[in-house]
Amino acid sequence: MELALLYSGGKDSSLAALLLDTFYDVTLVTAHFGVTDDWAHAKDAAGELGYAFETLELDRDIAEKATARMVEDGYPRGGIQQVHEHALEAVCGLDFDAIADGTRRDDRVPSISRAQAQSLEDRHGVDYLSPLSGFGRGAVDRLVETHLDVETGPSEEIPKADYEGELRALIAAEHGREAVDEVFPDHVQSYVHGRR
Amino acid sequence: MELALLYSGGKDSSLAALLLDTFYDVTLVTAHFGVTDDWAHAKDAAGELGYAFETLELDRDIAEKATARMVEDGYPRGGIQQVHEHALEAVCGLDFDAIADGTRRDDRVPSISRAQAQSLEDRHGVDYLSPLSGFGRGAVDRLVETHLDVETGPSEEIPKADYEGELRALIAAEHGREAVDEVFPDHVQSYVHGRR
Repeated sequence: MELALLYSGGKDSSLAALLLDTFYDVTLVTAHFGVTDDWAHAKDAAGELGYAFETLELDRDIAEKATARMVEDGYPRGGIQQVHEHALEAVCGLDFDAIADGTRRDDRVPSISRAQAQSLEDRHGVDYLSPLSGFGRGAVDRLVETHLDVETGPSEEIPKADYEGELRALIAAEHGREAVDEVFPDHVQSYVHGRR
Repeated sequence: MELALLYSGGKDSSLAALLLDTFYDVTLVTAHFGVTDDWAHAKDAAGELGYAFETLELDRDIAEKATARMVEDGYPRGGIQQVHEHALEAVCGLDFDAIADGTRRDDRVPSISRAQAQSLEDRHGVDYLSPLSGFGRGAVDRLVETHLDVETGPSEEIPKADYEGELRALIAAEHGREAVDEVFPDHVQSYVHGRR
């Protein structure tokens, strides 16, 4: 069965790929808005892991709405959730038997409820899988340590291809650098350089 | 890393084993109350799948309390949940790095909340995994069809080693056959004969 996994090049979505390839032919799909070329980092990571890779360009309107919300909220949560939900809908439009993402049990955002999962499945006739949603942070960290070669550091220094990079760039262009720092608190990100 | 998976010989816990053995040395553990020898069915299934197997005898009091509740409720849900929570606590007492069960996203019972999962992990210093909690019913059915050789049928005709068999026997002994039929509505169970 063919499965498309929303992929950022980070540790969670990379670990999800390793878990799912027991059962599925995995293609890593990186969604982007055409704002930066950050998706190329995900392509490199996918190559290191040995998976097929595709990009999926999302409607720029979605990014504009999400960043407006983030600036208004003063935090990124709601905007990230909007973008992720939109990306899941979009990846359902590709021709795969199943779609998946790397959300963990302890993630606050993005988070797809059981009702949202069933709605996606019913409307699009695909299976939606979140293979790490039964794994807590500790288990994920231990598995990543064992199975992946990972670089970690502050968001702005790590080559990564999640939505955040492009949303930061959009906020900087529209509202200035300070707005980016206000919306995104410092946090550590990860980038995968291959398997261990 | 060594992992103990609560195992019934049915399709969900068997599929969970296949998924987890990507990352863990899996031992299948069947909890029982010493009421019947149904656990032997799980041992046979574990052998067919090629996994290590252990039994874990639970306190008979737990079964008595659970069946009393089921008869009072008129349905099995609350009692099954009590037994499953107790079994998870007990398996945490064995010497494994991680414990797991076969609960699916769409299961109503048993169901372990995020808070319960974190509490188990914090109190016992283990990782708790529910690898199928990111998989819906349709995905599980399709994967079982592809990867497992399964016999399905009414509960009373299928050799299975979940808690239900012993709880049925206890209710029959204490309250008669009719009480069993009242508490347990007809439903289809599965028993695994190996991999496909």
